[in-house]
Amino acid sequence: MMSQAFGYASTHAGAPLAPFHFERRDLRANDVAIRILYCGVCHSDLHQARNDWHNTVYPCVPGHEIVGEVTAVGASVTKVKPGAMVAIGCLVDSCRTCASCEKGLEQYCEAYPTPTYNGRDRQTGEMTYGGYSDNIVTREEFVMIMPDGLDPERAAPLLCAGITTWSPLRHWNAGPGKRVAVAGLGGLGHMAVKLAVALGADVTVVTTSPSKAADARALGAHDVLISTDADAMANARNRFDIVIDTIPVSHDVAPYLGITALDGATIVVGAIDMLPAIHSGSLLMGRKTLAGSIIGGMPETQELLDFCAEKGVLPDCETIAIKDINTAFERMERSDVKYRFVIDMDTLNAA
Amino acid sequence: MMSQAFGYASTHAGAPLAPFHFERRDLRANDVAIRILYCGVCHSDLHQARNDWHNTVYPCVPGHEIVGEVTAVGASVTKVKPGAMVAIGCLVDSCRTCASCEKGLEQYCEAYPTPTYNGRDRQTGEMTYGGYSDNIVTREEFVMIMPDGLDPERAAPLLCAGITTWSPLRHWNAGPGKRVAVAGLGGLGHMAVKLAVALGADVTVVTTSPSKAADARALGAHDVLISTDADAMANARNRFDIVIDTIPVSHDVAPYLGITALDGATIVVGAIDMLPAIHSGSLLMGRKTLAGSIIGGMPETQELLDFCAEKGVLPDCETIAIKDINTAFERMERSDVKYRFVIDMDTLNAA
Repeated sequence: MMSQAFGYASTHAGAPLAPFHFERRDLRANDVAIRILYCGVCHSDLHQARNDWHNTVYPCVPGHEIVGEVTAVGASVTKVKPGAMVAIGCLVDSCRTCASCEKGLEQYCEAYPTPTYNGRDRQTGEMTYGGYSDNIVTREEFVMIMPDGLDPERAAPLLCAGITTWSPLRHWNAGPGKRVAVAGLGGLGHMAVKLAVALGADVTVVTTSPSKAADARALGAHDVLISTDADAMANARNRFDIVIDTIPVSHDVAPYLGITALDGATIVVGAIDMLPAIHSGSLLMGRKTLAGSIIGGMPETQELLDFCAEKGVLPDCETIAIKDINTAFERMERSDVKYRFVIDMDTLNAA
Repeated sequence: MMSQAFGYASTHAGAPLAPFHFERRDLRANDVAIRILYCGVCHSDLHQARNDWHNTVYPCVPGHEIVGEVTAVGASVTKVKPGAMVAIGCLVDSCRTCASCEKGLEQYCEAYPTPTYNGRDRQTGEMTYGGYSDNIVTREEFVMIMPDGLDPERAAPLLCAGITTWSPLRHWNAGPGKRVAVAGLGGLGHMAVKLAVALGADVTVVTTSPSKAADARALGAHDVLISTDADAMANARNRFDIVIDTIPVSHDVAPYLGITALDGATIVVGAIDMLPAIHSGSLLMGRKTLAGSIIGGMPETQELLDFCAEKGVLPDCETIAIKDINTAFERMERSDVKYRFVIDMDTLNAA
């Protein structure tokens, strides 16, 4: 017998999110049932709900920054017990056998991983529904354990905004002695700053807006570079070992390659879009890397949660009631949030 | 008193190369004078002679794949003695103090290195003249020592075509267990194949021309991938750890990123040109690197010569008389050479 679930869904491209009753599957042997306490609000949620990527299957229950409490476990589950605080990110399954999965890089599963919402369950083909809901059922391998001392309300955005910046910072070895630039200061960018600072790197925010300089420094950035200031950008030529490019729309990456150091890397994590033509000299002169990175694998996501608990790193969040999700989408669109909305799922009771 | 030199020069953009008398500077304390025996013919020579890059200062004596014999040394030279066999590549000086130079990566000198021709001497500002001539004078740090047993006639192309592919193969760790693809099978591509094979990698040539398959295998390639065969390219998705892209003109790099493996790299070494727009997904899906690399530093160039002597790796060359250089340029333009022309400088006596 399937269990009842209640959440918010979009029913077609033009529709606001609205209350929605649906069912979660019965527990399989390796499944964990979770009561959702908090869910972060990601730009992807908005894109998917509105069918911006032309692949949305309605109804669509968004949400992939999930923190909750285990309520039941399948017969063979060993990872967690009822009562445990856990987290779920962008993925709920993958092939688990390809070279990427075997490396713990399920986000690069060669058979494509199963997204937490708008995906299809690998066994039944049923649509996956995300975290804008009161509960979720998912296999234990894709459940992270919340470490003691990590505030569950503020931890939620670590599951997407956090891991999306943590994974490239770790892969390209951000740490003491490394100069890290963060381009863009939204949900992803603010996490990149906090995490790079906590890793011990020298961190500069690159932004078009002089008005964001104080915000950047408040987040811990050691310096601010205004990307529209040609002299400042020229002076910063070849300066940064790692440039985390969180700009969420199509943009010219040449200025970021320009400030990338010899053997350094500019890593695109924000834009899922065309990158305009660049001259090969931007790469050749200094043996520079232009790379991309998406979210992170299960082991590195757990590592991130543990690191944040140990270092006391948390996203800056604004907690909202789920009835205000459509307003939150609108505010997110105009960057009117510092820096991430989190839905308190207790507010579903009032909806 | 300056010494006389005789070579071939272009006197303006439309002119063929023709005999040219000029002077080489007196030996400075750290200079080495070299009688040139052989000089390879590089596409850059043609571009510079014809002012394709809009920066040629005429007269222009091309040539930066130089092998010769030391005839005299300055007072403080310790590296070589008269009679030594030596080689000079694309660079004859750099700032020698910046971070790149200190790493032995003079090609990425932050103050820009001095090219072997069409550059300006860092002390006098005089133009540099290249290897299409009977002698050259240059500072000892930019002179490589020819190892015993390396055929001086065939070694010349190692100084540009060789090092341009050796440097990225080494930097990205080509070797046993690594899958290397080489795109384009000209002067650079044929060296990439030979060097990657000698390094122990599994090597595939990617070419538009099925007719080149036999040539590729003759060079040692283990496999051939026809880039116009959509099914073959789809089957090769995510296959190669390293893609050395030697295609010498502007081209879409997306197909090469497509066949690049998880955490692999496509390295552009041939095109000094615009690279058309790509979708960020080409980089994001598999954490792929698009990078660039130019020639190599002095230590790695010496390493290459030593490696080639030890392994018996040599370019496939066609030796020409200097009077035939204009014909060689024309043939090079239509890829009618397997795979590199080398000028025998003894033929200057007949010119």
